[in-house]
Amino acid sequence: MISFESDYNQGAHERILARLFETNMERVVSYGFDKYTESAKKKIRLACECPDADIFFLTGGTQTNAVAIDSMLDRYQSVIAAETGHINLHEAGAIEHTGHKVVTLPHHDGKLMAADVEKYLCDFYADGNREHLAQPGMVYISHPTEYGTLYTKTELSALAELCGRYNIPLYMDGARLGYGLMSRRTDVTLPDIARLCDLFYIGGTKVGALCGEALVFTKKNLPPHFMTSVKLHGALMAKGRLNGIQFDTLFTDGLYFEISKSAIDKAERLRGIFEKNGYRIFIDSPTNQQFVILENEQMERLSAHVGFSFWEKYDDNHTVVRFATSWATTDEDMDLLEKILTENV
Amino acid sequence: MISFESDYNQGAHERILARLFETNMERVVSYGFDKYTESAKKKIRLACECPDADIFFLTGGTQTNAVAIDSMLDRYQSVIAAETGHINLHEAGAIEHTGHKVVTLPHHDGKLMAADVEKYLCDFYADGNREHLAQPGMVYISHPTEYGTLYTKTELSALAELCGRYNIPLYMDGARLGYGLMSRRTDVTLPDIARLCDLFYIGGTKVGALCGEALVFTKKNLPPHFMTSVKLHGALMAKGRLNGIQFDTLFTDGLYFEISKSAIDKAERLRGIFEKNGYRIFIDSPTNQQFVILENEQMERLSAHVGFSFWEKYDDNHTVVRFATSWATTDEDMDLLEKILTENV
Amino acid sequence: MISFESDYNQGAHERILARLFETNMERVVSYGFDKYTESAKKKIRLACECPDADIFFLTGGTQTNAVAIDSMLDRYQSVIAAETGHINLHEAGAIEHTGHKVVTLPHHDGKLMAADVEKYLCDFYADGNREHLAQPGMVYISHPTEYGTLYTKTELSALAELCGRYNIPLYMDGARLGYGLMSRRTDVTLPDIARLCDLFYIGGTKVGALCGEALVFTKKNLPPHFMTSVKLHGALMAKGRLNGIQFDTLFTDGLYFEISKSAIDKAERLRGIFEKNGYRIFIDSPTNQQFVILENEQMERLSAHVGFSFWEKYDDNHTVVRFATSWATTDEDMDLLEKILTENV
Amino acid sequence: MISFESDYNQGAHERILARLFETNMERVVSYGFDKYTESAKKKIRLACECPDADIFFLTGGTQTNAVAIDSMLDRYQSVIAAETGHINLHEAGAIEHTGHKVVTLPHHDGKLMAADVEKYLCDFYADGNREHLAQPGMVYISHPTEYGTLYTKTELSALAELCGRYNIPLYMDGARLGYGLMSRRTDVTLPDIARLCDLFYIGGTKVGALCGEALVFTKKNLPPHFMTSVKLHGALMAKGRLNGIQFDTLFTDGLYFEISKSAIDKAERLRGIFEKNGYRIFIDSPTNQQFVILENEQMERLSAHVGFSFWEKYDDNHTVVRFATSWATTDEDMDLLEKILTENV
Repeated sequence: MISFESDYNQGAHERILARLFETNMERVVSYGFDKYTESAKKKIRLACECPDADIFFLTGGTQTNAVAIDSMLDRYQSVIAAETGHINLHEAGAIEHTGHKVVTLPHHDGKLMAADVEKYLCDFYADGNREHLAQPGMVYISHPTEYGTLYTKTELSALAELCGRYNIPLYMDGARLGYGLMSRRTDVTLPDIARLCDLFYIGGTKVGALCGEALVFTKKNLPPHFMTSVKLHGALMAKGRLNGIQFDTLFTDGLYFEISKSAIDKAERLRGIFEKNGYRIFIDSPTNQQFVILENEQMERLSAHVGFSFWEKYDDNHTVVRFATSWATTDEDMDLLEKILTENV
Repeated sequence: MISFESDYNQGAHERILARLFETNMERVVSYGFDKYTESAKKKIRLACECPDADIFFLTGGTQTNAVAIDSMLDRYQSVIAAETGHINLHEAGAIEHTGHKVVTLPHHDGKLMAADVEKYLCDFYADGNREHLAQPGMVYISHPTEYGTLYTKTELSALAELCGRYNIPLYMDGARLGYGLMSRRTDVTLPDIARLCDLFYIGGTKVGALCGEALVFTKKNLPPHFMTSVKLHGALMAKGRLNGIQFDTLFTDGLYFEISKSAIDKAERLRGIFEKNGYRIFIDSPTNQQFVILENEQMERLSAHVGFSFWEKYDDNHTVVRFATSWATTDEDMDLLEKILTENV
Repeated sequence: MISFESDYNQGAHERILARLFETNMERVVSYGFDKYTESAKKKIRLACECPDADIFFLTGGTQTNAVAIDSMLDRYQSVIAAETGHINLHEAGAIEHTGHKVVTLPHHDGKLMAADVEKYLCDFYADGNREHLAQPGMVYISHPTEYGTLYTKTELSALAELCGRYNIPLYMDGARLGYGLMSRRTDVTLPDIARLCDLFYIGGTKVGALCGEALVFTKKNLPPHFMTSVKLHGALMAKGRLNGIQFDTLFTDGLYFEISKSAIDKAERLRGIFEKNGYRIFIDSPTNQQFVILENEQMERLSAHVGFSFWEKYDDNHTVVRFATSWATTDEDMDLLEKILTENV
Repeated sequence: MISFESDYNQGAHERILARLFETNMERVVSYGFDKYTESAKKKIRLACECPDADIFFLTGGTQTNAVAIDSMLDRYQSVIAAETGHINLHEAGAIEHTGHKVVTLPHHDGKLMAADVEKYLCDFYADGNREHLAQPGMVYISHPTEYGTLYTKTELSALAELCGRYNIPLYMDGARLGYGLMSRRTDVTLPDIARLCDLFYIGGTKVGALCGEALVFTKKNLPPHFMTSVKLHGALMAKGRLNGIQFDTLFTDGLYFEISKSAIDKAERLRGIFEKNGYRIFIDSPTNQQFVILENEQMERLSAHVGFSFWEKYDDNHTVVRFATSWATTDEDMDLLEKILTENV
């Protein structure tokens, strides 16, 4: 049986494991001051074309969001997100647990539009009672979004311009950033993101690492005593080398981009297979997550052969399901999927 | 140059890395429901002689303390610790960050004595104004302590009895638990700990893992929706296999105990070397951390040849320093240390 | 100039002040254990027909909401509210500051409908990943709502039944409860509320007191050590008598109801005056807050003679404004308003 | 029976009640922007000889401490206090509830000495691992202390100089400030306090008000959006006039100082009566709280005639009790006490 259930159900890219092996018995300083972590930072700065970037490695997405948002906001400030944003729906209230309100605005295929944010900010600053309200202190977006969609450079620039005008940092959750960057249908590059966002993270967990996310501050805007903030969130790794070596490997010889591209190629083929076989695509996703509408009976039959994720009910007879390719998806996986679908399961 | 700076400056035991390699491309369920995590739990339950234990794997010590304490306490409750306790001095206020007061009592070579806790509880419950005070809701101890010392079974039983009488859970921070269990001078076993403590964690990061701590609830006392609490602390790993495989390996064929014992053997030899060469021992530690008093000049000379940690000033001319052996310390390291000290550095 | 700006811009009902004077030099126990507080509790229990009710007096609405919600919820739980709910929009993130997510659902003239809540709960419990989400732990409603509207007994019963079925407490914010109870168009009584809600508060600040809200737990569901929770929110008054005497007075000889009814009579007359003079009513409010649509020029002219509050923009040429009557509004105020409006300002 | 149990068991000074009556039906703006609040601020600035002071009125001591500390500290910062400090022992963990560690140092008759703080700060900044620790962000003192003692100007200046050197604000909890200022044995004036402290509060609740504390920022150091911080702590009063009118009255014609002096005169006489009758004084308190050592039998007999508070056990046969005079203590109270003690109860 083949699986498209998620992009985090296998281990790590073999080059990462090999590097962990090679360096294993070296004695290095702890808490992220080791040479591998330093090297990883340099390579990421280079890839971002942002020589001043401050970079910290954290362990997972929710943790990274909580640390980033809590350390950037004053305690009377809120973070603005699309109602579909990961921090709103899927993080168990981790942001609120640190004391901050998540203000939600409508989404457009998972995206937050500058016009909606501008209306909110405009109304907020026009409100004579605004000192009674949590002050908007950050704009959160995910790229790719929870629906696999991508901001265009124009959309991202509009958000950046707006945030700059209101002096509010723009934060991008890049849990699946690699897949976004290597999409065939994006005009947004990593240097664009570093230039337009005030901070963002480059996801490792879902793009070939055992764990790890690289949080990048691009505007000389590292909060004071950030390391203490990381520690008080329980997020400081004693063996910082674990994250450092992984990201050093991912950013050596373009591995991060190479494996992301492989997932995109598979996703494009996957969509083609579904379309060719007459399936309806739920949302036009240009990244590694593909959302397909299945008849409920069809879904049941298919699930005997292929792993995928329930996404949401479409109507009484249909369901939206998610197929995710990953850095580890093989041509054989794709051939098998094609065979299954063609044989009219 | 040889290093006794810490027990977390090398990678992981080679069997752990090998196991990560072997299992790497298997597709397993995420978030800690995989078979390796299940297997690790079974082995730990067996080692604890506690078939009912609920076990969760977390990533680091401060995180584990914060999650454990926050999820066990009501929000009006405090945790009692020795003033030297790790949660009081070295965790950046992580416990207070989750809203809980750390009440400190005097330490005795790093240990919290039942008599002191009893006096505190007795005074608390005699106080007519106690509803104005944070209610004591947990007793925290570390074993080994921050000074490398160990509770005797009698001392631990006294704390357990007291906590039971007051209906307050007893929590043990076992960041270096392996080294405590394999000390030549302890009468406390892992089943004793499981029996006497309400919850405790078995440290992995400092005992041969890349990362990871096993939090064990021994009294059918897992807080409701504990997984959600883990998530809202940003502590839920998508690839739960990383911790699962590591602990499964550590608890296969007694690896955890074997490598801990190796560190203890080296520590005993280390102390012997220092004593033989006329050095003063600061505190009688039966575990892998040894504290030595050095003349300041001596310290400087030695630091050219051996890595160790500053602990505290002893007096104007002397300093207390820490030498830590670990699962990875070799006989060659020890021979070299002996040579250096004997040649009167 | 007359004022309908708010129901909290004058002091307290004169009987309250008189009672504060009479009792001023008596020595009473502090922190809410005095005889006046006890007497007030008895009278409220009687008025609620709820002999078992636990009652605590707090000082303001946001404080009461924060204390009530934080003390009832576990830390992994959220509170469900209409998107227009006071805790969502107007409390500076006070609920999130205590760590809890406010989940918002659509409003219907300010009201939360059981059907919407049921859909949310149903989806939540159907979600296989629900342990990754903040668990719904309370339903919050305001009565009257922020739009002055009222739940019918049927609507309230539906919410109560639903909450009972899901074992989630139903909490009513009664900042203006008196005005709701004395509306000519309500079938909901105070005993109904005590029966249907698990906890609620009876607002004093906006109904004739200097300050003070009475938080009522109706189902023997006072959280343990609630007084400590009040204290740690900074909400425990040393001179508890201040709140006790005020509520004791408000619930003596039906004063609370009498002054609320007076405000309702004035509000009904106020609406009549506007309607008679051809003004458009924005929302059909049966309580003391009346929302009128004014042409912008009209609004400017009127504001020279009458105080009122900006509510929201209606369109480019019109604005919604709020006129609030209160326990202190006089017939002379009303006569003057009628004169002003009739003379076609 | 006469009572010296506390300084908050009677209502308010009659001039305060009279002023509440006079102004009761005036319509004023809410949330602290009314003319009485403005007037009170002006008078306090004058009394402090600090024309730039920012002043906010809050409702109680614990609330004021929580708001002041939480709004001044970054979330990775702690507050330093004497182990006997009110925020450490008697506020139910309210400071920790907002996420901040209270670091305790030894006390000297309730006072925190600059030398102890300097040692702590010096050690902290010498610690190579200080980024793992909560950063000291404020020094908290109470004046009078919990033992009724007072800082000398020299001691206060030393703390101020130290705090300035380390760029850490010095905060004074003045719950009983009036009694401290009018002590016969103090060289510290209100302008001294305004000059030496970065922020402090002038207590009302224990010095003749129904409720209320005036928080004074003296160094143009009001935290941004402080009103929002007050609101999110649930501490913003809708009828700000209640606090404003009370403090305006207390600072008119020196009422605050006059009634404080009266309490001091009574306290001095009280001590004289005890001393003359051969009682032992526990601690030399120059303010309105007097601590006397009683034989346990004596204590029981006395408690039939006089109200006082249990303070602490002295030895098996003796108890320390507290007698508090207040703004409301009369000469008749004192005569009666003298009679009771002289007649050898």
